[in-house]
Amino acid sequence: MKRFLFCISYNGSAYHGWQVQKNSLTVQHVVQDAIEKVTGFRNDVVACSRTDAGVHANNFFFHMDSDLKITPYNMRRAVSGYLPLDIEIKSVIEVDSSFHARYSAKSKEYIYKIWNSKIRNPFLNNLVWNYGRCLNLDRVKLAAKELIGEHDFTSFCSVKSDVKNKVRTLHNIEVLKDDSMVNFKLVGNGFLHNMVRIIVGTLVNVSEGLIDPMSVRDIINKKDRKAAGKTAPPYGLYLNNVTY
Amino acid sequence: MKRFLFCISYNGSAYHGWQVQKNSLTVQHVVQDAIEKVTGFRNDVVACSRTDAGVHANNFFFHMDSDLKITPYNMRRAVSGYLPLDIEIKSVIEVDSSFHARYSAKSKEYIYKIWNSKIRNPFLNNLVWNYGRCLNLDRVKLAAKELIGEHDFTSFCSVKSDVKNKVRTLHNIEVLKDDSMVNFKLVGNGFLHNMVRIIVGTLVNVSEGLIDPMSVRDIINKKDRKAAGKTAPPYGLYLNNVTY
Repeated sequence: MKRFLFCISYNGSAYHGWQVQKNSLTVQHVVQDAIEKVTGFRNDVVACSRTDAGVHANNFFFHMDSDLKITPYNMRRAVSGYLPLDIEIKSVIEVDSSFHARYSAKSKEYIYKIWNSKIRNPFLNNLVWNYGRCLNLDRVKLAAKELIGEHDFTSFCSVKSDVKNKVRTLHNIEVLKDDSMVNFKLVGNGFLHNMVRIIVGTLVNVSEGLIDPMSVRDIINKKDRKAAGKTAPPYGLYLNNVTY
Repeated sequence: MKRFLFCISYNGSAYHGWQVQKNSLTVQHVVQDAIEKVTGFRNDVVACSRTDAGVHANNFFFHMDSDLKITPYNMRRAVSGYLPLDIEIKSVIEVDSSFHARYSAKSKEYIYKIWNSKIRNPFLNNLVWNYGRCLNLDRVKLAAKELIGEHDFTSFCSVKSDVKNKVRTLHNIEVLKDDSMVNFKLVGNGFLHNMVRIIVGTLVNVSEGLIDPMSVRDIINKKDRKAAGKTAPPYGLYLNNVTY
């Protein structure tokens, strides 16, 4: 038995997220269909994480086991042939059976893209959050700094989440502006449901003056989703990388 | 009577080019529909040039006349409201009645984008030419240099063109590589039908060893479309700017 680790990239616009659902098209469903055409078996693949509907991935990892005599290179080529153009396999490697796409992850990196201009970019529909008001990045960076570190991120987690331990370490938030594009890069040991989107939505509320940059510590301490700001829309979010 | 100069950007993927056609959806048709909803009149707008089906524009100019009492700012806002998300108005200004979007153009700049990797980019479908073989940019640049200057570009013009004078001046060709993206930037006083796409296709044939970089002068001198290389696909092409 071999364990294959896939790294894929996908444009999530057309999908109801990663995870298989009844009655909805998801990335996992399409990927498993493609693999089944190659291996002849229905494999449940094991992913590094989930993504919500409309969310994208630059480097998303999953593993699967197979006793098929096939090289990782040929696996990549064969499965690629059955995938649509909005899902691309970047690499396939063979890993040890002790490796796990989810549990072996040491840290994850997300990017959130805001197109900060009154003039939309017609090439980026569904790929950014179009936000027309001028972002005050000095305020945003001040607030972002307060979020870095180990905290209970209950205030920045969807109330729908049933995860018990909401303590996570946010290693870094970078805010980079390049012309009209503002990229938020977040690195952490793990992320709660909607955590990046609530952080970005809160930082935008800080820019708008609705939240004081120095009140971020209070928001964390309240451990109450209502204390934080709005949830940014899904289409600006990219799972950028996973470190193993 | 006022003359308004519009600068628009569009993702051409969904359109049969710029110019109005019977029985096909074009960018001009959609733009004129939107303007009619604002002005109440069917205006034929006058464009800087045409683009083929699937070709994009970062900055495309057209003018129109109206005796409506409306500021350029409000014209932009009003017409924008009736446009789909793949066509965006970047600016509207008032110009003198002697100004002409086509005849006043001094030079034009096109960009051609090649995604040069065996691994496609799922965010760039229809926005680049996916080309998997490694481009030899040294050869490409040698050949490109030979094209710069004033020449009869008959060999680099679609045989369907009925333009008589095929002499144009190509001011510059830049070839810039950024990771997997190769951008060809061409600036000239005017371009013939398919000229950029035939130049890029020929340069790719040079990279492949099918055409010698030093034979480009001969190709020009033959004044025969068959002497040049293939026509690159439309979806990598962007009208990037017009200088007036």
